[in-house]
Amino acid sequence: MNKEGLKIVISGPSGSGKGTIVNKLIENENSIVSISATTRKPRVGEVDGKHYFFRSKEDFEEMIRNNELLEYARFCDNYYGTPKKFVEDTTASGKNIILEIEVEGALQVKEIYPEAVFIFVIPPSLEELRQRLIDRQTETIDVIDKRLSRAKEELPYYKEYDYLVVNDDIDSAVTSIENIINCEMQKSSNFKKQIESMIKER
Amino acid sequence: MNKEGLKIVISGPSGSGKGTIVNKLIENENSIVSISATTRKPRVGEVDGKHYFFRSKEDFEEMIRNNELLEYARFCDNYYGTPKKFVEDTTASGKNIILEIEVEGALQVKEIYPEAVFIFVIPPSLEELRQRLIDRQTETIDVIDKRLSRAKEELPYYKEYDYLVVNDDIDSAVTSIENIINCEMQKSSNFKKQIESMIKER
Repeated sequence: MNKEGLKIVISGPSGSGKGTIVNKLIENENSIVSISATTRKPRVGEVDGKHYFFRSKEDFEEMIRNNELLEYARFCDNYYGTPKKFVEDTTASGKNIILEIEVEGALQVKEIYPEAVFIFVIPPSLEELRQRLIDRQTETIDVIDKRLSRAKEELPYYKEYDYLVVNDDIDSAVTSIENIINCEMQKSSNFKKQIESMIKER
Repeated sequence: MNKEGLKIVISGPSGSGKGTIVNKLIENENSIVSISATTRKPRVGEVDGKHYFFRSKEDFEEMIRNNELLEYARFCDNYYGTPKKFVEDTTASGKNIILEIEVEGALQVKEIYPEAVFIFVIPPSLEELRQRLIDRQTETIDVIDKRLSRAKEELPYYKEYDYLVVNDDIDSAVTSIENIINCEMQKSSNFKKQIESMIKER
């Protein structure tokens, strides 16, 4: 069955654990995580084409003009975006591509790939989210409060997603998403060729 | 999570193995198979309200007039149909209801419950289907040929279903359907209440 891979978009509030989930998902050899393009300088150890596609501002703006990006945004004077070609080459090869992107970017991707699978990851509660952010010990209470307000703003966007996964346990969240991927492959629209050849069979 | 159960419609050509699959699915305590109403006489050992709801012709026709049936058909001078009440009582109690019905009936159910989950079960090939029907040793070659033509006519209706399951092995087909049920419970539309209460949380 040489079928096209799925496009899987995963979003969720900061602290929902979506990054950890994505890292576990790509241990499965049939899924690859999308690589973003950026104009920011590589940090020590970062490799072009592996962590990011590092591009000059001019090159990035040309990608925008040529419609080569699925979505892009500007943070702290740097561009970040998702190159279409890498996504489409991956699915054409039969592998699933996982896009871990913010709500705004996900909505842009939905315009281009309405057939993609949209998964929203949430923490079991906002209190739990707060605790996780505190436990990270990387942010001040002020920043944590901002992240919590942001999470509250993002939650209502769950409606734009096909599936919702409550991450109260990483392994069960990963299993849920693997199940979703399997189910999507059972969608009847994927079986056109198989049914047509069965009907011709005798 | 006191959620409503799912309505699961399973169809497939005769010999696809859907009956065996349904029997295995209901071993799972959260799923119940729908009970049909019929005007045919009970056979030895058949119990009213367990194997069928046995009704008189007059009572059945009143159910039709009162719109109490999801679908019905007439075979060999007897009526067969699916009472709405049993389906809705089951889902209201939080259990999933499984409806094993023919393509025509499934299309009628889709009009009433567009939110139901529609699963089409097919054999791996028509040749395999033919072999299974021969192995049953219950039908003449003529009848088997008729069933095969009927299967060929039914196959194009796979498009009306959400999911397709190829039954080349009963246990994996059952696992696939259990996965589909789990995924359907992850649909974001089921999480309205949970998200609303999270947003109110703090």
